[in-house]
Amino acid sequence: MLPQWIIEKKRDGHPLNEDEIRSFIRDYASEVIPDYQMSALAMAIYFQGMTTEEVAVLTDAMMRSGSLMDTSSINLPKADKHSTGGIGDKVSLMLAPLVACSGVAVPMISGRGLGITGGTLDKMESIPGYRTDLSQDEFLKVLDKCGCSIIGQTAELAPADKKLYALRDVTGTVPSIPLISASIMSKKLAEGIDSLVLDVKWGTGAFMKTIEDARKLAKAMVGIGQKMDKGMTALVTDMNQPLGRTAGNAVEVIESIEALKGNGSADLVKVTLALAANMLVLSGRSETVDEATKELRGHIDSGAAYDKFCEMVLLHGGSVEAVNDTSILSTADIICNYPSPETGYVSKADAEGIGKACAVLGAGRTAVTDTVDHAVGITDLVKIGEHAEKGQPLLTIHGNEQNKVDAAILFLDNAFVLSAEKCHEADLIVETIT
Amino acid sequence: MLPQWIIEKKRDGHPLNEDEIRSFIRDYASEVIPDYQMSALAMAIYFQGMTTEEVAVLTDAMMRSGSLMDTSSINLPKADKHSTGGIGDKVSLMLAPLVACSGVAVPMISGRGLGITGGTLDKMESIPGYRTDLSQDEFLKVLDKCGCSIIGQTAELAPADKKLYALRDVTGTVPSIPLISASIMSKKLAEGIDSLVLDVKWGTGAFMKTIEDARKLAKAMVGIGQKMDKGMTALVTDMNQPLGRTAGNAVEVIESIEALKGNGSADLVKVTLALAANMLVLSGRSETVDEATKELRGHIDSGAAYDKFCEMVLLHGGSVEAVNDTSILSTADIICNYPSPETGYVSKADAEGIGKACAVLGAGRTAVTDTVDHAVGITDLVKIGEHAEKGQPLLTIHGNEQNKVDAAILFLDNAFVLSAEKCHEADLIVETIT
Repeated sequence: MLPQWIIEKKRDGHPLNEDEIRSFIRDYASEVIPDYQMSALAMAIYFQGMTTEEVAVLTDAMMRSGSLMDTSSINLPKADKHSTGGIGDKVSLMLAPLVACSGVAVPMISGRGLGITGGTLDKMESIPGYRTDLSQDEFLKVLDKCGCSIIGQTAELAPADKKLYALRDVTGTVPSIPLISASIMSKKLAEGIDSLVLDVKWGTGAFMKTIEDARKLAKAMVGIGQKMDKGMTALVTDMNQPLGRTAGNAVEVIESIEALKGNGSADLVKVTLALAANMLVLSGRSETVDEATKELRGHIDSGAAYDKFCEMVLLHGGSVEAVNDTSILSTADIICNYPSPETGYVSKADAEGIGKACAVLGAGRTAVTDTVDHAVGITDLVKIGEHAEKGQPLLTIHGNEQNKVDAAILFLDNAFVLSAEKCHEADLIVETIT
Repeated sequence: MLPQWIIEKKRDGHPLNEDEIRSFIRDYASEVIPDYQMSALAMAIYFQGMTTEEVAVLTDAMMRSGSLMDTSSINLPKADKHSTGGIGDKVSLMLAPLVACSGVAVPMISGRGLGITGGTLDKMESIPGYRTDLSQDEFLKVLDKCGCSIIGQTAELAPADKKLYALRDVTGTVPSIPLISASIMSKKLAEGIDSLVLDVKWGTGAFMKTIEDARKLAKAMVGIGQKMDKGMTALVTDMNQPLGRTAGNAVEVIESIEALKGNGSADLVKVTLALAANMLVLSGRSETVDEATKELRGHIDSGAAYDKFCEMVLLHGGSVEAVNDTSILSTADIICNYPSPETGYVSKADAEGIGKACAVLGAGRTAVTDTVDHAVGITDLVKIGEHAEKGQPLLTIHGNEQNKVDAAILFLDNAFVLSAEKCHEADLIVETIT
């Protein structure tokens, strides 16, 4: 069957069969099918969609385009969490050691992420010495020793997805739920996990701007994972304001460490525990989410989760000294308050605007080759529903260049709204999809 | 503006502005925009369509991607005809000299055509010595001398269309009316003509299978041409049975020569005169189609059209001897009748089936690099509404290899239906669109 016949079939709204999808992806990965046929198919998929069956095959085909992580030597249930991304989303740093404390291995392969702040990898690399580029052997050894490891995507992992992801970015075929789902799931399921919990965010700081779109994406991914015999749960969570009180890289590491010590902001802890608890339930370690949550809180209170984090950092070559004394982490030259223009309750602390402020400070990257400034970002965010006096700081800016700080302030000026009365707070966790 | 933003705009159903279309085509032609972005845009256009404004700009941009024929030295109105193609469509051979006899120059740049039988160029090349590869200077000299010339597309003519046409073929983006229209019109209008008559065919042997689709394409092209200040008329004509009584290459030349001598089959003459008459009206040479038709018939009756054809052949280096004595043209080794399986009136003489028979005989090409066998094809076709006795030939097969003749017969066996009663004849010219 010629590639153009497969494109035409999808264009005309017919579901593709397993052979058609597998041969297209195999030949695309091996450069038999050129980019121009793949982009035409991607656009046809954008318009005509795919059934859950089709997306499951597409996911499996992309996953098998590279090597699969063989985690069979780890004699524990294996689970992971994936977030669709948001401002101040530092959940992974706290979640991985927490879950590992309950006897579930977390083989977390993370992205660097283009966009507003760095990805989980950039955050971890704020810790001096922390290596994200472990070999598969080293990764398995770390997992075996401490039950969790956070590393970067290797070249061998789902190379078809890597090619397609880059192609979609320049051909207007990013916002397609089947393609987004298959991309995420092909990378995550290549980790050799038994179950996966998804944090699908909605709001101004998220990829999905509406609850409805987030719900659709969540349902699509849960459906695919279940077709591939994985335990799946998705939470739809709010990303209209940043998660926690910091956004950046080193500043998020510090907030995560504080949260592991029991000093976390309520929203960050709530989302992290909910995601982690669902991992324990899917892994058969707990009967209910409530029971799991209680157990996980215990790991914070006992210091076990903090110790597990330190152990993981150490096994990755990172400085435990810096974890114990975060003043060692890189700090910005310019640290200044952003004062509230009036007195009132914060009714908007726009994730997108605050994210853009962090981006101009240098916390993220717009091209893969950009370097991230680990020191910059924002801290001490006053959150929606909290009160601020006029002149009192709404957040603290950490910058290394005055002109970038000035540019960040322009974004912040549009990010906040204060009201005389306390507004109704939106649900942090909107829905659980199983 | 990044190319992907333009793709996204079209994907989301917004009309593109002139700058966006022109820059995209310019950069595509100069290989700044890669094929994978063009194919994604083409697929988005397939789904979202284009306004007449947009298609006119696209046509103009593709036309201007190459050199335009400068016909200003020809001191006559200039007109051409384009057909969307069909089996036995030999209209151009007769039409060009006919129209030239009325003082309208016909600078006809023709295609070789992939498909069932050769294109107009292949037919002309059945005449020994006839050169279709004239330089622009030679072309203008022939036009100046005899008022008509039929040559092939040069590399300089609308190169953006040439690239896009090849790309569409392998990316499932052929059947898009905006893209088909722009492709046809960009090549035709690069000829430097004042007006254009379109023969948009519908039926089993045509690209458009329904009258409705043919009408849409005709209206789209007429709209584009008018936006570009060209005189435009389109006829929607029947292509459910071959036009005339022959299909192939040399056999069609012979039928055309006979028609120029006044011995043409009724349908061929009717369509040719209707198209030619509309060219005279658009060129201001006649007040009405009826008046023009009368004048054109006069050119056949007087022998002027035949003489004009001979003059054109001579100026292209072709053998006038072969025109005068067509037995010199290449003939097939195997000439055999295809007998009627029963007695009755022909109610179906399927253009597609007969076309496929010609294709297996070798009259067409499936790849650009294939060579055409000028001798093979079919003649003496009994047309719909005509009577045949059982065993009496429904057509004559001209082949050069017995196995190909056998394969052609298999197609012919499904091409004919005979009925006891004479069926209602379909309209040959369905509609005139101005």
